[in-house]
Amino acid sequence: MTLLRDEGLTVEELAVWRMLQRAQVRITRHLEGELLLAHDLPLASYDVLSRLAEAPERRLRMNDLAGRVLLSRSGLTRLIDRLQRDGLVNREACESDARGLFAVLTDAGAARLAEATPTYLRGVRAHFLDSLGPDEIGQVRQLVTRLAGATDAP
Amino acid sequence: MTLLRDEGLTVEELAVWRMLQRAQVRITRHLEGELLLAHDLPLASYDVLSRLAEAPERRLRMNDLAGRVLLSRSGLTRLIDRLQRDGLVNREACESDARGLFAVLTDAGAARLAEATPTYLRGVRAHFLDSLGPDEIGQVRQLVTRLAGATDAP
Repeated sequence: MTLLRDEGLTVEELAVWRMLQRAQVRITRHLEGELLLAHDLPLASYDVLSRLAEAPERRLRMNDLAGRVLLSRSGLTRLIDRLQRDGLVNREACESDARGLFAVLTDAGAARLAEATPTYLRGVRAHFLDSLGPDEIGQVRQLVTRLAGATDAP
Repeated sequence: MTLLRDEGLTVEELAVWRMLQRAQVRITRHLEGELLLAHDLPLASYDVLSRLAEAPERRLRMNDLAGRVLLSRSGLTRLIDRLQRDGLVNREACESDARGLFAVLTDAGAARLAEATPTYLRGVRAHFLDSLGPDEIGQVRQLVTRLAGATDAP
């Protein structure tokens, strides 16, 4: 309690933060469980495939990709190793930058993503959106826009 | 677009979910970076130490602990290995249940947690609470209570 006060937090404020973490754990576990069960695809793999699918020429620099998914650079390297072994992603050197390395979605990766996407979308509907009232989506949008921090996002 | 419609999602709803993920990435990275820099302590380790500190007798069954942090059972096992090597946590057999294994916070673990907590709380203030207006905390509390799902949380 004293410590909280020293740092300018109320008990309620800390509880709200913990609850947001808990919500993230709950939703993420549901999505992951369903993707694994139906498609043998971990959520982190799904996220990587879908970020690549949205990128121009279906490719992103490893650094840019790492900035968009919740993985350390070393965790992403291991994941890309695995996806490459499975034929879902390739690595390509960057012509204009000797240090740069791209991850590129393969056709097999795009097909795997397309198979898994209905499961993923149903999960987002069931475990996230359906927990909110119809008027609350706009409220949540405002709040998360602020929290996602357009200016200093990694 | 068609796919979204098939699964009953709007573009805006999916964007809100992606933004929530993005907010989580942003906040988590800031907290992790600050904990590593000042205390050489990853965020997952901080979370484990603090869950143990709050538990009766500063100990939790491995399964209960896994349910409270965003780690797979195997990820938690590796993390507890590391924390045990550093003297911050011990493993103890459960007397009443041969299958059960407890993780127990050591005095060194409690001291390490106490050192890191001001950094953590300042981070929650700076990267989460300060992004919200003063009237919004209550709003967020209502929303995350719903999303954290009191009944089916893991």
